[in-house]
Order: sequence, then C-alpha cells, then structure tokens
Amino acid sequence: MLIVDSPTDRTSSLLATIDSPRDLRRLSLPQMELLAQELRETIIATVAETGGHLAPSLGVVELTMALHYVFDTPRDRLIWDVGHQAYAHKLLTGRRDRFATLRQYKGLSGFPKRGESGYDTVEAGHSSTSISYGLGMAAAKAMQEDDSRVVAIIGDGSMTAGMAFEGLNHAGDLGRNLVVILNDNEMSISKNVGALSSFLSRKLTGKTIRRLRDHIEDRLMALSSVGENILTVLRKSEESLKGFFTPGMLFEALKFKYIGPIPGHELEDLIATLENVRDHSHGPVLVHVITTKGKGYKPAETHPGDYHGVGPFDVATGTPKKNKNAAISYTKVFGDTLCRLARQDKRVVAITAAMPGGTGLLPFATEFPDRFFDVGIAEQHAVTFAAGLALEGLRPFFAVYSSFMQRALDQLIHDVCLPNLPVTIALDRSGVVGADGPTHHGVFDLSFLRFIPNLTVMAPKDEDELQQMLYTALTHSGPVVLRYPRGSGEGVPLAPSFAALEIGKGELLRQGTDVLLLPVGNRVYPALAAAELLEEQGVSAAVLNPRFVKPLDSELIATWAAQTGRVVTIEDNTVQGGFGSGVLQLLHQQGLSLPCTMLGYADTFIEHGPQATLWHNAGIDAEGIVRGALALLRS
Amino acid sequence: MLIVDSPTDRTSSLLATIDSPRDLRRLSLPQMELLAQELRETIIATVAETGGHLAPSLGVVELTMALHYVFDTPRDRLIWDVGHQAYAHKLLTGRRDRFATLRQYKGLSGFPKRGESGYDTVEAGHSSTSISYGLGMAAAKAMQEDDSRVVAIIGDGSMTAGMAFEGLNHAGDLGRNLVVILNDNEMSISKNVGALSSFLSRKLTGKTIRRLRDHIEDRLMALSSVGENILTVLRKSEESLKGFFTPGMLFEALKFKYIGPIPGHELEDLIATLENVRDHSHGPVLVHVITTKGKGYKPAETHPGDYHGVGPFDVATGTPKKNKNAAISYTKVFGDTLCRLARQDKRVVAITAAMPGGTGLLPFATEFPDRFFDVGIAEQHAVTFAAGLALEGLRPFFAVYSSFMQRALDQLIHDVCLPNLPVTIALDRSGVVGADGPTHHGVFDLSFLRFIPNLTVMAPKDEDELQQMLYTALTHSGPVVLRYPRGSGEGVPLAPSFAALEIGKGELLRQGTDVLLLPVGNRVYPALAAAELLEEQGVSAAVLNPRFVKPLDSELIATWAAQTGRVVTIEDNTVQGGFGSGVLQLLHQQGLSLPCTMLGYADTFIEHGPQATLWHNAGIDAEGIVRGALALLRS
Repeated sequence: MLIVDSPTDRTSSLLATIDSPRDLRRLSLPQMELLAQELRETIIATVAETGGHLAPSLGVVELTMALHYVFDTPRDRLIWDVGHQAYAHKLLTGRRDRFATLRQYKGLSGFPKRGESGYDTVEAGHSSTSISYGLGMAAAKAMQEDDSRVVAIIGDGSMTAGMAFEGLNHAGDLGRNLVVILNDNEMSISKNVGALSSFLSRKLTGKTIRRLRDHIEDRLMALSSVGENILTVLRKSEESLKGFFTPGMLFEALKFKYIGPIPGHELEDLIATLENVRDHSHGPVLVHVITTKGKGYKPAETHPGDYHGVGPFDVATGTPKKNKNAAISYTKVFGDTLCRLARQDKRVVAITAAMPGGTGLLPFATEFPDRFFDVGIAEQHAVTFAAGLALEGLRPFFAVYSSFMQRALDQLIHDVCLPNLPVTIALDRSGVVGADGPTHHGVFDLSFLRFIPNLTVMAPKDEDELQQMLYTALTHSGPVVLRYPRGSGEGVPLAPSFAALEIGKGELLRQGTDVLLLPVGNRVYPALAAAELLEEQGVSAAVLNPRFVKPLDSELIATWAAQTGRVVTIEDNTVQGGFGSGVLQLLHQQGLSLPCTMLGYADTFIEHGPQATLWHNAGIDAEGIVRGALALLRS
Repeated sequence: MLIVDSPTDRTSSLLATIDSPRDLRRLSLPQMELLAQELRETIIATVAETGGHLAPSLGVVELTMALHYVFDTPRDRLIWDVGHQAYAHKLLTGRRDRFATLRQYKGLSGFPKRGESGYDTVEAGHSSTSISYGLGMAAAKAMQEDDSRVVAIIGDGSMTAGMAFEGLNHAGDLGRNLVVILNDNEMSISKNVGALSSFLSRKLTGKTIRRLRDHIEDRLMALSSVGENILTVLRKSEESLKGFFTPGMLFEALKFKYIGPIPGHELEDLIATLENVRDHSHGPVLVHVITTKGKGYKPAETHPGDYHGVGPFDVATGTPKKNKNAAISYTKVFGDTLCRLARQDKRVVAITAAMPGGTGLLPFATEFPDRFFDVGIAEQHAVTFAAGLALEGLRPFFAVYSSFMQRALDQLIHDVCLPNLPVTIALDRSGVVGADGPTHHGVFDLSFLRFIPNLTVMAPKDEDELQQMLYTALTHSGPVVLRYPRGSGEGVPLAPSFAALEIGKGELLRQGTDVLLLPVGNRVYPALAAAELLEEQGVSAAVLNPRFVKPLDSELIATWAAQTGRVVTIEDNTVQGGFGSGVLQLLHQQGLSLPCTMLGYADTFIEHGPQATLWHNAGIDAEGIVRGALALLRS
C-alpha cells in the first residue's frame, strides 16, 4: 500500500525495537540519528495515506527524541502545545503498531489524548494552553514535594495568543520549576505575524533598532563616564545592535531564564542542552530551539504552510491524491464570494486569526492586501478589532473555525453584540469536522450563539445559499454569524447575482401533513431525502428550511408545526440548547405543546471519524431522520 | 443631601461653565488646576451617595483633562479601557447635570456608553479591550484617509490580560497611528501580580538583574574593544542596571514608540507631552503615565483596593454607610466555606483572576498563602492552570464573576471538561448584578454552560445550600460549576457540618396539584412565596428545587410535571437556552408535551438598576411568578 520504502522493513531495523522511551535511551548517537530518519519515513509514508499534520511533526523529530531521551517520561511530563506535532512522540511511546490507524475511525487520534497513553499528559488540539497546563502541574508538584519535571513545548506561532502571555506572566511571577521549549520555526500554520515574531527572529527594522539605540544612549549617558566610548560603538552599526537585542531579553524581563537559540535538528546539542536544563535549572526556564517546519521532506520544507495539514498525497511528488468529490467547498465559496462583495463595496474588509488558507481568504489577501488582516492566533483580539473597524464605518468579516470561536465568546457578547455593530463572523468547520476529532468539532456553536441579544445567526442549506447569506449579512446593520460545515457543498449552481434574504424568514421546501421535518443548514438535504423515504412508507412529511437560527421564523414554523402536529428538528450540533431547543421554546411561547423530537448530538464529546459516519451514528442522516420521525409518529 | 461642600456651589464657580471639552480648552493652567479640584470633589461627593468606582476615577482626573484639552474630541477617539475610570470624562462631556444619577436606575451608566454621549466611543466594562478596539478604529481611519487620532487609555492591571498583548502584538506589526496611554498605578483592582508588573515598576529582583547583566555582558564582549570598560561599569552596581532596563524596551521591542514615564498629576507636563504626541508621532505610540489610584482622597489613596468600587460612604471618615440587610453574602459564605474545606482537605487550592476581595478569597489567601493563586486579569489562563493543578491530584476552586467567565469558555470545554477534570468554578455575580449594568450582569451562564458534556452545574437556593454544594463539588470526581448571585443570602442558618448532595437530585419543597413551579437558585424562595399567594387565589402549586441544572433530576421533574400538567420555570438568566429550555427538552425527551411557561430575561441586554427592580421587570419575583402561573392556567 505504501509508496516509499516500506516502513515495515525499515522500522524492523531500529524503530521496531522501540517500545517505549526506555529503549530509546539505550541507543548510541549514530543509532539515534538513524532512528530519526526512520521516524521521518514512517511519518511521511503514513500521513501520505491517512492525511494529517505533516510539517509540524517533521519539524520536531529530533526534539521529541531528545526530550524523551533526557527526561524521565512519563514521570516527567511532556505537554505538546496544540498537539499536531506529536506523531514522533506517538511512535516512540508504544503506539508504533497502531500508527497506520492515525486519524482513522476508532484509530489513533491525531492529537495527544490521555486515554491513549500515559505519555499523553493533557488533551490538546487548541493553541497556547501548554504553559498554563504546565504551570498548574509544576505548582502542584511543588506543593506535593514531587521533584519530577514539567516541560511544555510551544511553537512561536502559539506564542502570539494572549493565553500564552498570561501563562508566561504568571509563571515568571510564581517561580516554579517549569521548562518551556519555544519551538521556533517562524511559522504559525502559515507565515507568522505580529511584532513579537519580528523580535524573536531578530528581523528588526532599522527604525526599531534606531529607537532602541536612542533608549540605550539615554541610559548610558546617565550611567557613567565611559558612556561616551560606548556611544561611539553603538552608533557605529545597526548590525551590532541587532545582536544586542536578543529574544532572551524579553523572556528574562518576564523572569524566565533564557537558553538559546539552539539548532533543533542536532541531537547531540539538543541532548546536552536539555541535560543541563534538567540537572541545573530551577524556576522557569525557556529553551529557544530553532527548527525547520517540514524538515526532511523537500516539498514540506519548501512550502510548509501547504503541508501543515494535508490530505493523502503522493510521496514521490508531494501532489495531493485526487479528491473524488468534485463539488466546490463551502470554504472556497466563502472566499470567492467575499472577493466579489469586496469588489462591489469598499467597506468590506477581512480578518483571519492565523488561518488565511484554511478559511479560504488567500484570494482575498492577494486581491485586497490593504483590506486583509491576519492578526495571529488571537481570536479575542480579532473580534474586538473587527468591532473597532465597524465603529468607523467598515464592514469586517472575520472567518474562523467554529471551535476556535469558543475563545472569543465574551468579545462577541460584550464588544460586538452589546453595541450592536455590523460585524460578520463566518463560522467555518461548524458541525463535526471528521478526522481532527473532539477538540475541533464545531458542535456547540448554535448553543453558545443563540442566546446572545442583537445577534443574527444564519445557516445555509447549500453553497448558493451561503453566498446569498454573505450578501445578506452585508446589507444587515447588526452583528451576524454565518455557520457552515467543513467540506463540499451540495453541488448546486451558484446564482450569478446576489439577492438579499429577508432576515428571520425561512422557506417551505415540501408540503406534508403527518410530520414537520425542521432541519438546519447542512441537514436540509438529508431531511428532504428522508421525506422521500417516508413517503414510500406512506408518511407525508413537510420540510422547512429555517435559514435563520436567530431570529427564528416563528410564523412559518408555528403554522406548519400546528398543521402537522409533530415536529422533528435536525441539527449538526449538540441538542443541548441548540436549534431544536430554540424551536421547542418558540412553540411553547406560541402556546403549542406538540410532540417533538430533537435530533443532534447527545451530551458527550464526539470522537474522530468520517463526517458521514458521525452523522450516521447520531441519527442525523436521512436514514436516522426517517427512524426519528417514525418513532415520533408511533409514540 | 451631600455631605461635603455642596458641589453645586463649587461647580458654579468653574465646572458649571464646562458644557463640553471646548470650554475646557479655553481655561488657563491655574483654572485647570482649580477645575481638577472641583472634579475630584464632585466625584467624591457623588460616589459617597451612589456608590461606584471611586479610586480609578480619582486617579485620572488630570489625565482626563489633558486628553480632552489636547485632542480634538469627539472627532479624535478616546477609548477608556474597562471604563470604570470615566467619571471625570462624563463630567467634562456634557453630563454634569445628570451626574448625581450615576448608576441609579434610568440614570447615567457607571461605564462609557455610546447611547449616552458622542464622546463615549465604545461600550466598556470588561478589561483589556481598548487596544483592539482602538487598533480597529485606527486601521479604518487610515483606510479612509481620516487623519483624526485614536487614543486608548489602559491600566497596568489590564495589561496582564492576554487580549491586551494580542492587541499590542498586532498594533506593532500593523503600524497604524494608535496612541496607547498606559495608566500605571501599580494596581489592578487589587495589588497587581505577574512578572510584567515587576518589570513595569522596575521592581526587579537582584536575580533578574544579574541574569540580564549576564546577557548584556555576552553581547558587549562580542561588540567591541571597549567592551571591557563597559563591563567594569556594569559590574559595579545593580542599581545602575535597574535604570538600564526600562519598561520602554519591552514596548519598543513590540515596535511601539515609548514615551515616559511621566507624572500623571502634573497638568502642564501631561499637556506638553500629549501635544508632542499629537503633533509629531506616527505609528503606534505608548505613553507611560504614572498615577496614584484614589488621588486626592486620603482614605482612597491609603487603601486604593478597598476604594476601587464602593457602596455609599461617609466622606469625612471614609467609612461605609450601614447596610440595612444584615444577612451574610453568598460571597462570604463561599470564602468561609472554602477555608473550612481547605482545613480538612490538603488538596484544596484557590484561584482568582485579580479579584481576591470581590470573590471572597481574602481569608483564604491569608490562611493558606501557599495554596492561593492570583493569576492577574487572566481568566483563560486561570481555567487551564486549574486543569493543570487537577491533573496532579489537587482540587482547585476558581472563583470568578459570571460575566468574566465568558472569557474562558473554550478553556472550560477543551481543557477541563473534555479531559473530565475535577475543577470547580465558583461563579459569583450570576444573574443580574444591579448598578454595574449590562456588561456585568451574569445572565448568560446557564445558557453557555448547560451544553458542555461532563460538566455538573449546581445553583443553591440559599447560603446553606451553597456550603453543601461546595462540599459536594469536592467529593465529586469531575468538573463542577456552582452558580450563585450577587448580594445577601436568605438569612438561613448555616448547618455546622457538611453533607454531600446526591449529584442530579432535586428536592420537592411543596406539593401541589394545579401547576409545578420550577425555580432555580435564588428564584426558589420567590417561587415559594408565589405558591403561598397562589393558594390564596385557590391555586395549588407544587414547588421543586432542582439544585442541579445539569444533570437535571429527570425523574422528579417528569413525575411532578405529569402530576400537575403545567410547568412554570423561573431563572435569573436569559430564557434563551437556559434552565427552562433544558427542562422543556427533558420533558419532550420523556414524551411529555405539556403547557410550559419559561420565566427569565427576554432576548435583550438588561440595563443597570437595583436587582429587585430588574427581577420585578422581568416577572421573576413572587408577583411575576404568580402572574405567569395564572396566565398559564388560563391558557
């Protein structure tokens, strides 16, 4: 099945002997280097089949080995921030044999997961939690006089999130034994942004250097009689000053001991440095390691952004394997439509939190560079920044994955909806996302959105409705969230011109007398299919597309609910407090106490697996809807 | 009514002539100084009557005057971070005559509010939004070739929040004309914490200084031949190095131009500096202003934490006016109970996000300093830090106001509930809070909590149940949120010993045949009172205290709902997706389609006003419950 040298053959030579980090610690340096090569080959070959986070894991192969070699894992705790770089970690910690099941249904998770291994210390998936987790663990260990170590490994991209700063600020203050490894590849998922990034990479502009020099001059003048000599030196060269301002200063100012930068692919150096940290450091330490994202696989090294997360690909060429489904994705429709809107309306601006590719905004960024803002991994700031843009008359669209929007609930409530500003949140990856699993499923958004006053929440049934809803959002004078799923649309044609939808008005798609099917967003077509199947069984089902989750079309829904006498709601969201719950409240407010069934996810976290499987398991595909409707009719 | 020199008399001399900042700009410096005095007197006298945020506003009187004097407000935008320091701003911008209505029902808001004045540029209330707001506004102005200025005024406490860092990081990168005024009083609401704070105030330890020196030495050695001379100087004194490391460096590294520190109570200096900034600066600028929190009122200067937010007090002595209600507050019961639990169980630790006083944790901090963590204004970090503590066997209790918990939804879902960790969130100020208004009301929490898998949500009917629930949380092995309101308990005695409640079990408080009253938390006693009133009208109402919002006691609720045939739910929360919505879903899942009325807040933001008034307006006091029940019975 695998395209490169069979990893089974190769691992039999060395990787096959590594059942736990204990085995790793017995290897010689040349053996370690060979193992690094085998790990890379196994990761590349496997991800070429399964898809996954390729470039991040390739970048930390040596670092992972050095950490397990030096630290007494699992007693010492390794915390992988985000967790998308943990493939080598999985291979070294007893999961070699199951590695081919990576990201497959019932197989290994693409992220650390405590249920999978004692070496996985926390659940990960979202960015910038590792310092906070690690500090808590280090503080608890100190209280319990446990001298084992805690090591958080965090990328420079994740450092742009405010939460990482909050953790550093507290860690410096608290002074516990916490090792933070800054895995610096000058990238988030895409190219890194933000002032901190320039500082870390020492790509300081002449202007910044001159300002810093002015400061030092002031200080030196006050310092001593030799000040003049020093000034002469400082004035000589900007280059020398660049060396003067090390990233270390920043972390030292926050009371961390700073070590580095050290090269991240030299096992000997890494091991020596980490042994030194392990044996001689107390209090918070930051080890700055420079790595190459995608290291060891030429296509990934050249285009690390493209190979951050990939589908199956051809190893020899790096080209993606053909996707059987030819329908255009919601993400692409969003990106293309926003470009069209921006051409018509100068007020349109776009924001991403470090995901220009994933959210479909690359064409926008290319065509409208001055109207495009990548704010870094900073969802909180993104939302309030959008509010600021809106306050001065612009029409910002913030494109973000549903599960990451959980980071900015307060900003949406307090900074956007309270002042009732025309900010649109384009919520991609709503509903189950598939292989990325519970940390990335967007199955809570309808529940955490529908209670916010002033907010309009829409969900398109297909890609054409998505473009019309984007246009509608632009014509609306208040905040809007537009929710759409991961993956392909329904394959319907896109209308050439825009027509605004009436806010709060749904559409009747099919008349019926026995039961009302009330699906939302991507559940509309399965409900229509279910209605066909029900008809074959002699049941007449009406189907209504509400279009708006908030405000609900109370008249249309109440009319058809009353007419059919039974209602089945269907949503790609938890049933707790979601769309169905809103419908139920609406009916009761209208004095209608009717038998209702709410289909959606039960009150548990949902594992990873193909979307179709997860929809099926939850009973929200056509078959499940038929089952739900029949059960309601029988009750 | 007022206790000090009548401000009406005094303002007639000068403040009475200021209808807008335009009038201010006509004053001479001596007149400005007199006006500053009048502003202080008016603020002190008014807040002594109304209560409010005294110390923050006193600290920025001169700064406020200088900003309005120098900048062309309202064309230039002033953004007050948090907004609790904006009383002088209100007095100078045409709201002098209404100032006595501050924080009163239908009166002036205690925070900036766009509906109140064109000089209020954003809605404020929560910390650390001003840089993001300001950067959005500055970016929009740049795009529209509007050369007016944007000025964000942010305290050093607010700088500890990650969101502020996210804003700075983006602002430095984007390079727009944004002025950030760092109002540095070395305080959050209480004493500031965190490594950043030490750096800003230059209270660096010898250890930090030595580390920084080592760095500089390394650099200097590489720099030049005069390195040796410089090293001699540097080695001489730690004091001189303290001067060397200015807060400016940190901001310059983030590509801000840094100006300061400048004294914050010298009008002449302030005006000269701000004029210079206005006329000569481009790109992001940070002006570091040193102020004294509570300036000009001796008790507030001496105990700025105690006078951050106050109730009515006696101006001469500074002592609070007597509170008629003698019942112990929920906050105090929480704090006292946590101390008792900590004495019994070494695993108990407590966390606050910069509010040790407001959350009742001061006694805990005093008794268990090593088990108490103030993490700064950093709710995101606080939750994941708690998760880290729990992972290593401790039992963390994070006490936080309901509306601030909106900042940490993702961390609760992703870092606590997904791994199912025993972290308890003590959610104070749930429900309406009164005078602080819409930004501080905790009326969304039941809606944003009840959909989270693995989470247990409890709400005590009175202060005794609160202590038992805290004990119950400690005996439970998963995540718990415990929701309780601002203010006094019911005056019931506290049981001397703890007894754990059964998770998910409610209690029947009153039998009845016509209608089931199903109140949650602080609505239980009003519901009992309503049942009495209903009985007088011949209606027999059952009353059930669910205790748990999640999991609901399905058996008890379904039994009594079926028995009475009609259900009224009552909650101090929005009805959208809240407790009542959960009950409705439960009944339908049990096949019970009964007439139900859900009482709670309608789908709008709720203004400020006394809690009793707001409960009354929403129909969730005893009278409103009676009305709701009778309407349901008539339907």
